[in-house]
Amino acid sequence: MALATPWGESALAVIRCSGEGTINLVAGVFSRPEALRGEENASMLHGYITAPEKPEKIDEVMLAVFRPPHGYTGEESVEISSHGSLPGIQKILEVLRSQGFRDAAPGEFSLRGFLNGKMDLTRAEAVQEIIGAKSRRAQALALNRLSGALWERIEQLKQGLTSLLAAVEVQLDYPEDEMEAAPELPLDRLHELETGLLQLLGTYRTGRLYQEGVRVAISGATNAGKSSLFNLFLREDRSIVSGIHGTTRDYIESWISIQGVPVRLFDTAGLRDPEHPVEAEGIKRSGQVVESAALVLYLVDATVGLSPAEWAEVEERWQDPRYLYVWNKTDIAAEPPPSGWIPISAEIGNGFEQLEAEIGRRLLGSGGDQGDLLIDSPRQQQLLERAAVSLKEAGGAVEAGVALDFVAADLKDALDALGEITGEVTSADILNQIFGDFCVGK
Amino acid sequence: MALATPWGESALAVIRCSGEGTINLVAGVFSRPEALRGEENASMLHGYITAPEKPEKIDEVMLAVFRPPHGYTGEESVEISSHGSLPGIQKILEVLRSQGFRDAAPGEFSLRGFLNGKMDLTRAEAVQEIIGAKSRRAQALALNRLSGALWERIEQLKQGLTSLLAAVEVQLDYPEDEMEAAPELPLDRLHELETGLLQLLGTYRTGRLYQEGVRVAISGATNAGKSSLFNLFLREDRSIVSGIHGTTRDYIESWISIQGVPVRLFDTAGLRDPEHPVEAEGIKRSGQVVESAALVLYLVDATVGLSPAEWAEVEERWQDPRYLYVWNKTDIAAEPPPSGWIPISAEIGNGFEQLEAEIGRRLLGSGGDQGDLLIDSPRQQQLLERAAVSLKEAGGAVEAGVALDFVAADLKDALDALGEITGEVTSADILNQIFGDFCVGK
Repeated sequence: MALATPWGESALAVIRCSGEGTINLVAGVFSRPEALRGEENASMLHGYITAPEKPEKIDEVMLAVFRPPHGYTGEESVEISSHGSLPGIQKILEVLRSQGFRDAAPGEFSLRGFLNGKMDLTRAEAVQEIIGAKSRRAQALALNRLSGALWERIEQLKQGLTSLLAAVEVQLDYPEDEMEAAPELPLDRLHELETGLLQLLGTYRTGRLYQEGVRVAISGATNAGKSSLFNLFLREDRSIVSGIHGTTRDYIESWISIQGVPVRLFDTAGLRDPEHPVEAEGIKRSGQVVESAALVLYLVDATVGLSPAEWAEVEERWQDPRYLYVWNKTDIAAEPPPSGWIPISAEIGNGFEQLEAEIGRRLLGSGGDQGDLLIDSPRQQQLLERAAVSLKEAGGAVEAGVALDFVAADLKDALDALGEITGEVTSADILNQIFGDFCVGK
Repeated sequence: MALATPWGESALAVIRCSGEGTINLVAGVFSRPEALRGEENASMLHGYITAPEKPEKIDEVMLAVFRPPHGYTGEESVEISSHGSLPGIQKILEVLRSQGFRDAAPGEFSLRGFLNGKMDLTRAEAVQEIIGAKSRRAQALALNRLSGALWERIEQLKQGLTSLLAAVEVQLDYPEDEMEAAPELPLDRLHELETGLLQLLGTYRTGRLYQEGVRVAISGATNAGKSSLFNLFLREDRSIVSGIHGTTRDYIESWISIQGVPVRLFDTAGLRDPEHPVEAEGIKRSGQVVESAALVLYLVDATVGLSPAEWAEVEERWQDPRYLYVWNKTDIAAEPPPSGWIPISAEIGNGFEQLEAEIGRRLLGSGGDQGDLLIDSPRQQQLLERAAVSLKEAGGAVEAGVALDFVAADLKDALDALGEITGEVTSADILNQIFGDFCVGK
């Protein structure tokens, strides 16, 4: 049992209960127990949650009933839609506890769904990736995995490996002298599979970027127009997923999306001599933000330009790929941008698209977009790597004329690694690790 | 159309759509349009929200379908349960907008439910009162109103008034000289009804207290044990509905529940000479918190006692009912509490129950608990008052022997006022005002 919606006052809250006997236990605290016991799969029932064995009403609710093998977990389950009242939710949870329900562990419903064969591990991981997605592109990529695209690709690779292994084993079963001619070793198919694995592995960096996002900081002197640029990003990118945090004395931040990449954008305190201890602290913290950013937009007021000391600093850092130099206020400045600088006017929006495109290039690299099937989980990446290494070794062994037993062992290991990705063979420890990162209620 | 769950990453989000044609419009962006169109009332359907006229998947969802006159609004409606992904929710809302849905106004679903005869106004108001309830008692009182308890009481009063009015009108229809004897004027019944009205009106202060809660501040010198007492309240009262806000330099606050009354409890900065400008600011703000509190718990470290200057201050304020004097650290202090002080040990919890009981007495007054039917809405209070005044005037008119026409007019006005409470006769302006205070999605 767990609250599946966020903890907050709202129109609706949903509490999920799952497991054998759920319907009967909920019926013990429901105003229409017989109706609930007789309720069909995927249907809803109106009534009141009550105190156990008492007519005292706790809240007016709608119950959604699922019977095995239906529903998210594949088990008997009831979803309680109540008013989004905080004391009301607490009261319902308490009444359920008194009925014998316990609080669900993070991801426990998904784990049960996986164990009951409702989804493989790539789909289960995608569930949490959808929820945690910080941009639409990230959400769409995770949904593609949830729809089974990654599972299908892994299955294809596994089928290829299985038939390769079968070919090798045929030769193991029939010693060379009994065969009419030494059969050709399927090296081509082996390399083809290796290429497929490496292609999928190659999507990891970008997939991870879309899922995790990156930190981008706007830096520069006071009055360079940092806040204007920050606000321009917020205005242009509708896909802001959280409010603005922090104070202007310190730094403020917001999640935005640039070319589909979730960006945690920071507007830092102006670089100038601190006049006040509070400001000094803010500048110190801003410095840490700049340090930890994947990309720094260094903004200069084009009507003022840079001092010789600042120019020297810029020159020194010029090769640092973390820095992008932005020449702001082109709408009112006479001075053209120095070579390699991006001209914009944060005030009226000129040059903004070019700036976004350049940020996209820096973040995504020259590879650019890599289609709709990307992996983003370190677990998947490690297992694919293990499979690729085994395949490479198998190929090397074939080429070196090593005994086929070794080739078969390598192929089997590659197959095992792929099987772990979809969860065919996965230890309880690893399952706990995967689902332990989920949110409660999923 | 509106998001009915809080805006945040979570397992589930629910988007409500309601109004004629809803099923057809949602079917236009659902992977199984025919199944949806044929779906029965109060049943659920699994599938994907898609882009309009395109197979592109937006999210995997469960749809709950309601057909008139069922469901919350009594209209055709669909509730979409999606993953609680922020970009995912935004995308679904956009797709729905492109289908012609518009964002629902606050309380619009409840307003429609009211207009479609699903509930009267006392029940509708109770919906938002349940959601905004800050303690279990407040939630239970609102649920009692939602279950129709207030509506029934008002109906009783209306029936009484209607029969009274009928008796008066009989006499108006038959002039005195045609009647065999001057009939007795039903003064007893009139006074009985007036008493009933006044009883209900008398619950307003307490009802309001339960619904709105009060501010209580813990005040006193540094090291008086204010934070220990604050934490003791948090630990003992399980019904905390929000986290702790603020910083210790300033003040911190949390909602707790004392004897069922929602209390916004403040732990203020210690009263001492500020050593630091930041601390001075904190003490200033703490002073404002104490000023605006309904009750101040003035805490003293019993091992230290009070300086003569502090005693003088306490004496001066002694009659102020806003102050409650608490003698803390009784577990280690030798000094017994001065008369009128409440002895406690915030450290080990001694005396805490007595302190809570005293706070309850101060907040609820000598009346104490007033049963389960309390009114808390200023609107209801004003209308009940209008009814009570009219009834009083009617009684006065009868006693003074004024023409019965006037008595009848007064009784009609009282009836109208009660009719407005349940929403029989209510102008669009007033409806907008009532439902405009609701949260979006309800």
